[in-house]
Amino acid sequence: MNRAALIEQIKQKRSVLCVGLDTDPKKIPPHLLNEEDPIFAFNKAIIDATAPYTVAYKPNIAFYESQGVSGWKSLEKTINYLNEAYPDIFTIADAKRGDIGNTSKMYAEAFFNSFAFDSVTVAPYMGIDSVTPFLAFENKWVILLALTSNEGAFDFQLDEDQKGEALFERVVKKAQEWASPEQLMFVLGATKTEYLERVRAAAPESFFLVPGVGAQGGSLRDVLTKATNDDFGVLVNSTRGVIYQSKGLDFAQAAADAAQELQKEMAEILFS
Amino acid sequence: MNRAALIEQIKQKRSVLCVGLDTDPKKIPPHLLNEEDPIFAFNKAIIDATAPYTVAYKPNIAFYESQGVSGWKSLEKTINYLNEAYPDIFTIADAKRGDIGNTSKMYAEAFFNSFAFDSVTVAPYMGIDSVTPFLAFENKWVILLALTSNEGAFDFQLDEDQKGEALFERVVKKAQEWASPEQLMFVLGATKTEYLERVRAAAPESFFLVPGVGAQGGSLRDVLTKATNDDFGVLVNSTRGVIYQSKGLDFAQAAADAAQELQKEMAEILFS
Repeated sequence: MNRAALIEQIKQKRSVLCVGLDTDPKKIPPHLLNEEDPIFAFNKAIIDATAPYTVAYKPNIAFYESQGVSGWKSLEKTINYLNEAYPDIFTIADAKRGDIGNTSKMYAEAFFNSFAFDSVTVAPYMGIDSVTPFLAFENKWVILLALTSNEGAFDFQLDEDQKGEALFERVVKKAQEWASPEQLMFVLGATKTEYLERVRAAAPESFFLVPGVGAQGGSLRDVLTKATNDDFGVLVNSTRGVIYQSKGLDFAQAAADAAQELQKEMAEILFS
Repeated sequence: MNRAALIEQIKQKRSVLCVGLDTDPKKIPPHLLNEEDPIFAFNKAIIDATAPYTVAYKPNIAFYESQGVSGWKSLEKTINYLNEAYPDIFTIADAKRGDIGNTSKMYAEAFFNSFAFDSVTVAPYMGIDSVTPFLAFENKWVILLALTSNEGAFDFQLDEDQKGEALFERVVKKAQEWASPEQLMFVLGATKTEYLERVRAAAPESFFLVPGVGAQGGSLRDVLTKATNDDFGVLVNSTRGVIYQSKGLDFAQAAADAAQELQKEMAEILFS
């Protein structure tokens, strides 16, 4: 998907909501465990219920890999269903991959060809040749980790070099030499409120994928007032705050309600 | 597998050879493409032929993921075969994972429970909670990226902080606060010859997984004289130099010959 189509979808839905599909058999409603593929059954119901309020879905690949071969099958069904039923919605393989060139090429094959995701999250530690193989695919995106939402972000990402630049700033700066804002986004944790403007300043045109609103404690209003740009420029992820609202028969409706609530808040801040 | 068993295996075989299983259907002998599972057929033949000279195998997960569900099945068969036929050999899931705590836990489930690997490679960018969930598994290992063998290693890993410490040194230092050398190794590229002693100085007791000898240009002699310690302390990976020596019916024998050649060189330097 290209940038214009993503922006169009945001305008139509008045939403920048990305729903995380961290689907865990231990957390889904027990009645689904009788289904042939409980993980896919859950995802399909969640997607159908929340699609009117959502511009992106983000399966967290770890949750599928932890189920072995059957998890990989559930993931395949999920991305195929998204592409067939909701071709206008942006899809993110949250995989945090990153390896030497010939290996990153294989990961690109995995997520862009074998599975037809629009984008994949990538870790920057190994530098340029871990990123560029993904860019060879037209209208596909790299979403590069910059400043993450977790506690461990403080271990290395804020380390300043001799010019006083933090590692996350060097990542954001350098990666923009490798790719245009048509193919490159950055991950920016909502929990790092005091850095939102600093990351926006370092990448004025880029889209940011923003996790950490809700369960992790980040503020939606802060993100939407401090990290946006003229093209909106953010996809705000919510996972637990949307998909695990009920373990009963009403789980999909409960997810729809939560997604609609977030969409309303977004519309109010972004479109009023 | 624990450290003592790994060292014992090194002594028995007089080898620190790790063979990379970057199995690509485009590169394996064409006659194998008639097999039901060509990737597994290739791996099994390579493993059987090279096991006498090898202390570790390292499937590169990207190559399996790029084949979708069927690749994941080939990987499952490969790790199961390794554990059944060669339980004394150390196994490495070269996955370069790394995510927030609850997600890293799922990756640990994937590679230590769903698949019974001894170790997994992990990227350090996201810090402590991306690493510690793997350590909850007894006798399982994290192999953390420190200084990698590729061109992109120069982008961020050598960046010095205000005290003059490079990022890779900060990673090596800090990670040793999270885990003991019984569960933590580091990736150290053989191509970065001038840093081998510096990394050894920063982690005197740790094992290093060393890629980059052979096709990538690193020197085996440099690694074995500059990066070892009293417990040997290195696993030297070779992939293309072993597994892709012939596309004919003799491919397994050719791999055995290449592995034996490396083992002999290792024995000469380490045990004479």
